[in-house]
Amino acid sequence: MGLNETPSGERTHIGFFGVRNAGKSSVVNAVTGQELSVVSEVRGTTTDPVRKAMELLPLGSVVIVDTPGVDDEGALGARRVERARRALATCDVAVLVVDGARGLSEADRALLSAIEGRGVPYVVAWNKCDLPAARAALAALAEKGPALAARTVAVSARTGEGVRELKERLARVVPVGTPRRVVADLVPAGSAVVLVCPIDASAPRGRLILPQQLVIRDLLDAGCVSVTCRETELSRALDALVGPPALVVTDSQVFGPVSRIVPADVPLTSFSILMLRYKGDLVSAVAGAAALDRLRDGDRVLVSEGCTHHRQCEDIGTVKLPAWLSAHTKAKLELAFTSGADFPEDLTPFSAVVHCGGCTLTAREMRARQARAEAQGVPMTNYGVAIAHMHGILRRSLAPFPEAIAALDATGD
Amino acid sequence: MGLNETPSGERTHIGFFGVRNAGKSSVVNAVTGQELSVVSEVRGTTTDPVRKAMELLPLGSVVIVDTPGVDDEGALGARRVERARRALATCDVAVLVVDGARGLSEADRALLSAIEGRGVPYVVAWNKCDLPAARAALAALAEKGPALAARTVAVSARTGEGVRELKERLARVVPVGTPRRVVADLVPAGSAVVLVCPIDASAPRGRLILPQQLVIRDLLDAGCVSVTCRETELSRALDALVGPPALVVTDSQVFGPVSRIVPADVPLTSFSILMLRYKGDLVSAVAGAAALDRLRDGDRVLVSEGCTHHRQCEDIGTVKLPAWLSAHTKAKLELAFTSGADFPEDLTPFSAVVHCGGCTLTAREMRARQARAEAQGVPMTNYGVAIAHMHGILRRSLAPFPEAIAALDATGD
Repeated sequence: MGLNETPSGERTHIGFFGVRNAGKSSVVNAVTGQELSVVSEVRGTTTDPVRKAMELLPLGSVVIVDTPGVDDEGALGARRVERARRALATCDVAVLVVDGARGLSEADRALLSAIEGRGVPYVVAWNKCDLPAARAALAALAEKGPALAARTVAVSARTGEGVRELKERLARVVPVGTPRRVVADLVPAGSAVVLVCPIDASAPRGRLILPQQLVIRDLLDAGCVSVTCRETELSRALDALVGPPALVVTDSQVFGPVSRIVPADVPLTSFSILMLRYKGDLVSAVAGAAALDRLRDGDRVLVSEGCTHHRQCEDIGTVKLPAWLSAHTKAKLELAFTSGADFPEDLTPFSAVVHCGGCTLTAREMRARQARAEAQGVPMTNYGVAIAHMHGILRRSLAPFPEAIAALDATGD
Repeated sequence: MGLNETPSGERTHIGFFGVRNAGKSSVVNAVTGQELSVVSEVRGTTTDPVRKAMELLPLGSVVIVDTPGVDDEGALGARRVERARRALATCDVAVLVVDGARGLSEADRALLSAIEGRGVPYVVAWNKCDLPAARAALAALAEKGPALAARTVAVSARTGEGVRELKERLARVVPVGTPRRVVADLVPAGSAVVLVCPIDASAPRGRLILPQQLVIRDLLDAGCVSVTCRETELSRALDALVGPPALVVTDSQVFGPVSRIVPADVPLTSFSILMLRYKGDLVSAVAGAAALDRLRDGDRVLVSEGCTHHRQCEDIGTVKLPAWLSAHTKAKLELAFTSGADFPEDLTPFSAVVHCGGCTLTAREMRARQARAEAQGVPMTNYGVAIAHMHGILRRSLAPFPEAIAALDATGD
């Protein structure tokens, strides 16, 4: 069941791209040591990206994304290029698999340009290097395009040559930087943090939802102490502590009652706001929330969630949020809903986008969605920010984030 | 990814059994409204149990177990009967699908006897009742075997007749009883419980392992407050509380250091012991632990885990536990390992069995494994009990469980 595995959104997503019959799926199989997708001599047998979570040394926890083969032939090929571009948005690092014997094709150059345009770090796998023609073409590349050649590894999926070097090269180009924290950077080392987790009928039996797990785990990793209770036991939990907690984190749905219990000098925020900050850009979501005040009759609002199996969020997104939006705007809005990978390319029909915290998405995907909205001039906010805004408690929930408070001040709210 | 769904071990497992071509898979599809397994006119196309988790009203969270068709024809058929019997051990309730037009076959009677022998509650689905022959056969059954007829529902997978009644009948025969608690029945309502969760390299990133989730969730459900920390912050966590916690629960691996920090008057136990009590029989595991002291050179010990994807337990089972067993017994033991569904039918080659807490198993499955060991006279214990026993802290970890203390006294330990 994979119950104890690293969540998909916390893994490094490695996308494999290439023209049909470059041997892309064979390279994927050689890298992973598994039969991930159907490999055959028929051109372009991989029609949808195949995703598989695995442990891959020296990279660690990864998701392998094997995309459809791309070429220049007709409309079907164009759709596949589009699909590959879309898959690129979800990838932390890309591998362009080239048919070394044929050399770089026009489609390869189009993919390279898309990869570089997205700023995704990449490695070129010059496949079929067991063939003299591929060796010769690679030598020619080194003369004509030394910059690209420096990013290229000679491999042969057939013989296994160069596969290990490809993996090591991938591990080197994956952006590392400072590991992001979900919450622990907001509080002094070793402090106590209170987590308010309401339990209603829609909560899955015997589980904690992913944001709760991510927060408790981050606090454990940082040597903090987390104190978990329902909103009905919050007063009791605060009384059980010798001193005030360094922070209170609550489910957005009970932000109102919780904000009345937590003393004014104790910082308070929500799981949803923490998730957004962890995965995306909190400041732009705060600016986006102001757009909710300007909604008028007939305006279209997109409500999007990152995952398809999250019954609690579904209830928030499709039931509670529409009711709050209606009460807040007093307008007859047209709501549209998407979940999972179905985030529209064209957001311009919408006056606003309200997105979930994105706990199951990679940070790259969440930021790509926000960047799309920004590029198209469509205000985008998130569940937690929108709910806090509509309940008049946004300023308090942003207190731990000075840059977000500055954005709030800029909206004149 | 199902990250936020009810774990499989917390669901009601419904097994569908029957002879080949009784229309078993069609009945499963009619009940679930889904295409669960390949339905065809070729006899016995379902060769392995198909398991699928779903929400099924009025039953709630279930796992549908569609078993291989059974018949009397030759060796292949016999293997299938054996597989069906094995699947039965994992089911909370069984449905015997009968080809109503043919009536009860010898194989049906064999399955009925296996189901009744296991004490699994069941319903007979008398299929093909759109055919007059099936109606007539059912009327004959009512005369000859009124007791069985009372457990029988007339259905037709083809027309959908009786399917709703079958689901309602299933909901009525599922044993309900008092909902079991993981931990909250051990402490006064509203009290604070400290949970010690060490984080090492084998802990999956960004997650809490299932026993930790089950315990925190159970405490939330009961209105208790859980205080979660690593063993290195335990003193700090205890100091942060106004009074002593009602209970401390620790990962078995750090039971030693934790027992030295927790004041003697505060009850202390382990996640593994809580899991065993929740899923199986703690008393027999305590009795089984004494057998570890009697192990001699050449004795065979079986180490079993319930799940296949649990890297942390794997490390305990295959690395730490063997080292502790070797140090404790000073004997050269022969260890055998199993995981997932592969728990041997014949345990008699083993001098002892050490099982994981079974967090991913149903209670029925865990108890069936313990009952098998007991019936074959093979001592069986579990990770947490064995570790506490070998470290000389078993008595303290059992303090919250008077019946287990009595069992310990009986072993003279």
